[in-house]
Amino acid sequence: MGVYDERRQGLYDWMEQEAVALAMFEDFEGRRDPSLRWLTGHPGDALLFLSQDRQSLLVPWDINMARCYAHADMAIPYGEMDRQPDRAIRQAADLFKTPLGSRVEIPPVTPYPVFLRYVESVNSFDILCRSNGLHEAAQERRAIKDGEELRIYRKAAEITNEVIDLLEQNVTAGKLRTEIDAALFIEAEGRKRGGEGTGFETLAAGPGRSFGIHAFPPYTAGPFASEGMSILDFGLKYEGYTTDVTLTFVRGTLSGRQEKMLSLTEKAYALALSMVKEGVSARGMAASVDAFFGKSKKAMPHALGHGIGMEAHEAPFLRNRADNTWQLKPGMIFTLEPGLYDPACGGCRLENDILLTGEGAEVLTRARIIRL
Amino acid sequence: MGVYDERRQGLYDWMEQEAVALAMFEDFEGRRDPSLRWLTGHPGDALLFLSQDRQSLLVPWDINMARCYAHADMAIPYGEMDRQPDRAIRQAADLFKTPLGSRVEIPPVTPYPVFLRYVESVNSFDILCRSNGLHEAAQERRAIKDGEELRIYRKAAEITNEVIDLLEQNVTAGKLRTEIDAALFIEAEGRKRGGEGTGFETLAAGPGRSFGIHAFPPYTAGPFASEGMSILDFGLKYEGYTTDVTLTFVRGTLSGRQEKMLSLTEKAYALALSMVKEGVSARGMAASVDAFFGKSKKAMPHALGHGIGMEAHEAPFLRNRADNTWQLKPGMIFTLEPGLYDPACGGCRLENDILLTGEGAEVLTRARIIRL
Repeated sequence: MGVYDERRQGLYDWMEQEAVALAMFEDFEGRRDPSLRWLTGHPGDALLFLSQDRQSLLVPWDINMARCYAHADMAIPYGEMDRQPDRAIRQAADLFKTPLGSRVEIPPVTPYPVFLRYVESVNSFDILCRSNGLHEAAQERRAIKDGEELRIYRKAAEITNEVIDLLEQNVTAGKLRTEIDAALFIEAEGRKRGGEGTGFETLAAGPGRSFGIHAFPPYTAGPFASEGMSILDFGLKYEGYTTDVTLTFVRGTLSGRQEKMLSLTEKAYALALSMVKEGVSARGMAASVDAFFGKSKKAMPHALGHGIGMEAHEAPFLRNRADNTWQLKPGMIFTLEPGLYDPACGGCRLENDILLTGEGAEVLTRARIIRL
Repeated sequence: MGVYDERRQGLYDWMEQEAVALAMFEDFEGRRDPSLRWLTGHPGDALLFLSQDRQSLLVPWDINMARCYAHADMAIPYGEMDRQPDRAIRQAADLFKTPLGSRVEIPPVTPYPVFLRYVESVNSFDILCRSNGLHEAAQERRAIKDGEELRIYRKAAEITNEVIDLLEQNVTAGKLRTEIDAALFIEAEGRKRGGEGTGFETLAAGPGRSFGIHAFPPYTAGPFASEGMSILDFGLKYEGYTTDVTLTFVRGTLSGRQEKMLSLTEKAYALALSMVKEGVSARGMAASVDAFFGKSKKAMPHALGHGIGMEAHEAPFLRNRADNTWQLKPGMIFTLEPGLYDPACGGCRLENDILLTGEGAEVLTRARIIRL
């Protein structure tokens, strides 16, 4: 049985338990859901239907692309359904002979007005749209990487580490002087190594712009790694999985305040890493790091980290928020990324990707604070 | 009065007519809404509240960034609201003394389960979540560009045209041989000219991959503009506004079938352009082009075009779908992008950005089919 089939079988079991007769996944602009690729290999722009009789139907925007990539039992071009999702649901239900009145689950991100339209237009079924349904079950499964995913992720990390070393060499040698230089170097080197590209737009912020958590614009023709603190935040995508790392480059003599920011960030990173263990509360970890910064009257204006995989941000979430109930489990891959930002001093962040195994934390990437 | 203030005044008028006391815009990962930037200048990752007393409150993730870019009456960091949108709504209502029981409008893309949570948690107000509400009114206004937008767009088009000419020169000179070469050349040249980056990930597909409407991965280390038909689809972003053009590069002697695809695409483009006129039905235009291809037993597997601006795809939509009621109006900027794709022959597409003025169609960009 192929890996996609195996993943679908897990969801069919779930559907059986929950008496869901038909389920739709949707991956289009504005509402991306990489679970579709995780379940079929198809890179995107498609609907996917899973039926209680353990059959899958892909409805791709581009049927030629589906012929190259998709592993599903059937495929029908979306154009044949007039590109209308409600029509696609009715057609899938016909095809699979879904019993009238049975439960049909749609994505929990379905907008309220669209949900109302489905309920009216697909009125022979019981439409479910819920946050704790099949789509969340898929996301929970995706949070624990399987063997195939670990293989891919180790390769993505290997490419990322090669590029980090090359970045250090080339910045040191004075060959990457602007934010554009640094960002496009990453784009090219990742793809030359067989990568699919960057997992998100690279953030390259020289000392004048590094105070922004996510600098805007993400990179410019301005100087990079000049006097002060520069941030380089990027991810390389390989076979659908992205890494996510942040380097800080430091040049020249820093002020006491800047040195303090760097040293607190490194200590916060070490503290976070020391807490990584099976069963630990993700919220608790984030709260500890917030408290650590708080003791020095500093505040980190973002979360401690987040899961990564097919998405740059996915489960588990390592943030100090009341609704965060995630616990760390073996097979999870997530970032730890403490940072501090100051409009007058600039910013610094250190971010690596951590795999939790049965033996403990394995730091997959080698991002670091680089003093020039 | 500044441009952001003017745009907000238009929406306050609308709110008054519709008796909406408070409205929320949301721009975060997964639910992007450039209307927020259109209304404040703030680049993103924020909530925006508009109140019936014509006051605005921005709730940014990054307050430092807001200090650089945002034009709003007030700003409160999202962190102070525990990054919870329902809490932000309650706090905004308190701040503006929104009368209990009055109408509070939230984005129409709000997922159904989130809508239910708001209704429960913000229960002193009448929560509106509808597809024909304030957010659609903002999108309709954005479809007709104002003077400031036309100024920006002409500059974006000028940069795009310079880069198109440089691409032709450099491909002809043999300096851009791979998809990576072509795509990164665009990234660098756009930013060197003051652009914010590309408006979407560049699609550079050599002859072996151009059959995909949107090639996957978007660009690779493989050959570009080698023997056959190659597609280069990109947009350059300037002050928040993106262009969207597609060039086809042709090298060597083509088969009769390939020549036919090219000539039909060029004729379809000319046909579409000839129809651009105030009051014309966008659906009708798309249907005419579909019928034109149909006469030669070809089918275009995507829409004829779409509005562009702060989003790569926005209103109006030029597609042949029953629910499309858009008519062309002066001030609209949209693409025309006929194309044909064949797994055996490759693909071709020609796409330019058209502004409709009181005098008729003005072709802003100069993408073309380039024979090497």
